Amino acid sequence: MDDTVRMTGVLDPREGWEATRCSIARALDVVSTRTAFLLLREAFYGATRFDDFVARAGASEPATAARLRELVEAGLLLKEPYKEPGERTRQRYRLTDKGHELLPVLVALMQWGDRWEQEEAGPVRLRHADCGATIHAELRCEAGHTVGRGELELAVNR
Amino acid sequence: MDDTVRMTGVLDPREGWEATRCSIARALDVVSTRTAFLLLREAFYGATRFDDFVARAGASEPATAARLRELVEAGLLLKEPYKEPGERTRQRYRLTDKGHELLPVLVALMQWGDRWEQEEAGPVRLRHADCGATIHAELRCEAGHTVGRGELELAVNR
Repeated sequence: MDDTVRMTGVLDPREGWEATRCSIARALDVVSTRTAFLLLREAFYGATRFDDFVARAGASEPATAARLRELVEAGLLLKEPYKEPGERTRQRYRLTDKGHELLPVLVALMQWGDRWEQEEAGPVRLRHADCGATIHAELRCEAGHTVGRGELELAVNR
Repeated sequence: MDDTVRMTGVLDPREGWEATRCSIARALDVVSTRTAFLLLREAFYGATRFDDFVARAGASEPATAARLRELVEAGLLLKEPYKEPGERTRQRYRLTDKGHELLPVLVALMQWGDRWEQEEAGPVRLRHADCGATIHAELRCEAGHTVGRGELELAVNR
């Protein structure tokens, strides 16, 4: 079992503490449903209008409205009025910085689904616009190393 | 709105298709609850026994049992008998390769929670065991470039 995360300092032994302020849990308190993740996917793909989210994320109108409201309240989407020439004023949703920074989570879910839940490759591929190479979500350390399985340790911040 | 993902080829315009075989959706069909993610967190931290998962992931015994069973059925955890000297045979859970490969999702959720849902830094930090530097989940392309916001495009695989 030595490819689990190694506990260091006061975190060892693991039985001596509980993950009470866990950032993973807090992130999942904010984005906790399949629909919320799929609405964010559509926002990354360029959806801005309510009808567009309903048509593309696969949820009912009430569920879409409820999840969008939660995402706005949590600060991941901004709801703002906009008006195109000759049309009435409508509302649109766009990603905030907080919403944008969830992209690595979605890319990591996508590559896992590509690998484990598709017959062959997935239907679509994310490419780097500058060079066309396929994009991955990777674990790297600040010294620039790729972090492999069994090479992680957990430390307290303070 | 030009920091969304740019659609290419037959994916442009976006209105012409739907994400019917989406790998993100399929991943979320498999791991869809907060409890499932937190049980996987504990497996990465080294938990193997049912009582340990109950004590540390914050869910009730029935919910823990149900989610563990789903994770075993989906192939993310392996349930196997083991026996320590002088003890009776028990069951333990360990991560399969399929389970291990979800680590980038958890690390990406953790760093997002650290940044957006904590007062200061998060309580713990993942370090590279080899060099001690902090670990991040990053988007990079196969040519080795860091992929910044607005530099992603989506293409069909076939």
